[in-house]
Amino acid sequence: MDWGSWGGGLERHTQWGLDLMEKYVKFVKERTEIEQAYAKQLSHSPLALSLFCQYQAFLQVVKELNDFAGQREVVAENLMTRICVELSKHAQELKQERKLHFQEGRRAQQQLENSFKQLENSKRKFERDCREAEKAMLVAEKLDQDLNATKADVEKAKQQANLRSHMAEESKNEYASFLQKFNRDQSQFYFLEMPQIFNKLQEMDERRTVQLKEGYGIFSETERQVMPIIGKCLDGMKAAADSVNEKNDSQVLIELHKSGFERPGDVDFEDFSQPINRTSSDSSLGTPRGTLDGRLDPRLLGKNKGKRWLFSKKNKVELAVRPWLWLLCWVGDTGGPEPNR
Amino acid sequence: MDWGSWGGGLERHTQWGLDLMEKYVKFVKERTEIEQAYAKQLSHSPLALSLFCQYQAFLQVVKELNDFAGQREVVAENLMTRICVELSKHAQELKQERKLHFQEGRRAQQQLENSFKQLENSKRKFERDCREAEKAMLVAEKLDQDLNATKADVEKAKQQANLRSHMAEESKNEYASFLQKFNRDQSQFYFLEMPQIFNKLQEMDERRTVQLKEGYGIFSETERQVMPIIGKCLDGMKAAADSVNEKNDSQVLIELHKSGFERPGDVDFEDFSQPINRTSSDSSLGTPRGTLDGRLDPRLLGKNKGKRWLFSKKNKVELAVRPWLWLLCWVGDTGGPEPNR
Repeated sequence: MDWGSWGGGLERHTQWGLDLMEKYVKFVKERTEIEQAYAKQLSHSPLALSLFCQYQAFLQVVKELNDFAGQREVVAENLMTRICVELSKHAQELKQERKLHFQEGRRAQQQLENSFKQLENSKRKFERDCREAEKAMLVAEKLDQDLNATKADVEKAKQQANLRSHMAEESKNEYASFLQKFNRDQSQFYFLEMPQIFNKLQEMDERRTVQLKEGYGIFSETERQVMPIIGKCLDGMKAAADSVNEKNDSQVLIELHKSGFERPGDVDFEDFSQPINRTSSDSSLGTPRGTLDGRLDPRLLGKNKGKRWLFSKKNKVELAVRPWLWLLCWVGDTGGPEPNR
Repeated sequence: MDWGSWGGGLERHTQWGLDLMEKYVKFVKERTEIEQAYAKQLSHSPLALSLFCQYQAFLQVVKELNDFAGQREVVAENLMTRICVELSKHAQELKQERKLHFQEGRRAQQQLENSFKQLENSKRKFERDCREAEKAMLVAEKLDQDLNATKADVEKAKQQANLRSHMAEESKNEYASFLQKFNRDQSQFYFLEMPQIFNKLQEMDERRTVQLKEGYGIFSETERQVMPIIGKCLDGMKAAADSVNEKNDSQVLIELHKSGFERPGDVDFEDFSQPINRTSSDSSLGTPRGTLDGRLDPRLLGKNKGKRWLFSKKNKVELAVRPWLWLLCWVGDTGGPEPNR
């Protein structure tokens, strides 16, 4: 209790120091949990592949983000091992050391107090013995003046007085030596033992401060270490974005769908009037020649090309159209010469 | 439906493109939410101040981490406004544009089919009329050979035949012009309208790809932008760590607790034997002179300094001890010369 009352400031401060250390460890632990959760959320399971570079680029961005997340995990791991684990270990050791120093202090304090008690007791005894000696001396002197006192009485009283003053003399020496001892102990306590203990405590506390300082340094260092790799992830994302080529994806689409079929040609004229013209070839019917003989304006006569598509049951124009339309529209090729009109 | 069956590939691809855009926006939205949560978790409310640099450094590290968190918020904000908002806006516009192009395509398809129906009908009519004309011609020729037929009958039949062949002639011309029209329409459809529409769709899809490409680029750019500021946060954390000085904190602790009081001096010898010596100053008592006259070995006589502390009721040595012990132990000063023993 005595110790506590004057070592108390130190006890409080060294405890505060350990608390600060644990507070920081807790702070960093929380940070590692945040980083782990963050990394977990950032990472994605791989996606399906695609022929289109605009999708491949997306996959690459996701992949790079996974690597980024991996670096956040590295941060979390380093914070945990290099700060939390380390400082917790130190804190345990410091707690033990601190306990020892304060025990030593209490012991020294106790010894000084015992020495002080001895001093007090010997002093009280000396005081008592002196009073007794004084009384005895007065008695002897009175008898000495007393004409009626017998020599024997006087001698007896003087012996008594001598005895008492001798006893006082002895307790005086005892008190003197306890006083000497206490002053030696007190000086030892104040000028040697306590300074040593408190210097040990100071050294210990400064050691703790340095450990904490290192812990602070590692906090930012851990982040610095991953920055170059994170930079590489960002380069990868940028490269992925740059790799996107819209023309290329158009070409891929064409290659996927083109068939190379021809576009259907003009539909042919079917002349149902030939029988008439044949039978009435030499008749004088007023039917205008050159118009019913099937030799029509060539503009009306197309080639047979594509007809099979055009007249196929399924989806009418559909079959002929779909295949080349891709080829056409996606390469911007008009698919051959315009018909002559 | 016809359109769908052959424009289908395009319809699917352009839809796939819009889906990819939305998929990416969703991906970035999630990232912004992760960043916001991360930033929120990283930021701490300000802590109490302290005179000890090891604690101030901790506060500084926390403050810098708050700034770091602030930068994560900036990332989240930029991702949201520069990617999610932008691309969503583009996607809406593209959806509208895409709809219009496909409507145009369906219209053109419809027109071609109508033109084809007209052609088919006029062809069937021409075929029918030719058959009628042929029949009428045969009737007329039979009557012409029939000796019993009257001139009037023959003339009537020939007129009938002429009428029929004239009608056939007319529907032949009609069929011819519908054929001409259809071939023109079909050529227009295949060589002009469709190419135009598909080229518009291609241009639109490539525009979308470019917008997506920009969105990919901004993803890493946003991160790059905050890197320098995050670097500054790390510098700040490092500086905070470096600022910790254990000796300085020891000094602060001393300044807080030192009182400057002296350490207690030696306890004085209190001579209770003087009365005896005074009264027996000239007596022949065998008390050794020079030992009971109060002039004791100076080693036993301390100065009165600090005595008032030493003997104060409260905690005995406590008051005298606590104040200078701080000063002593924390500056390693032994607090003056050792007593001469």
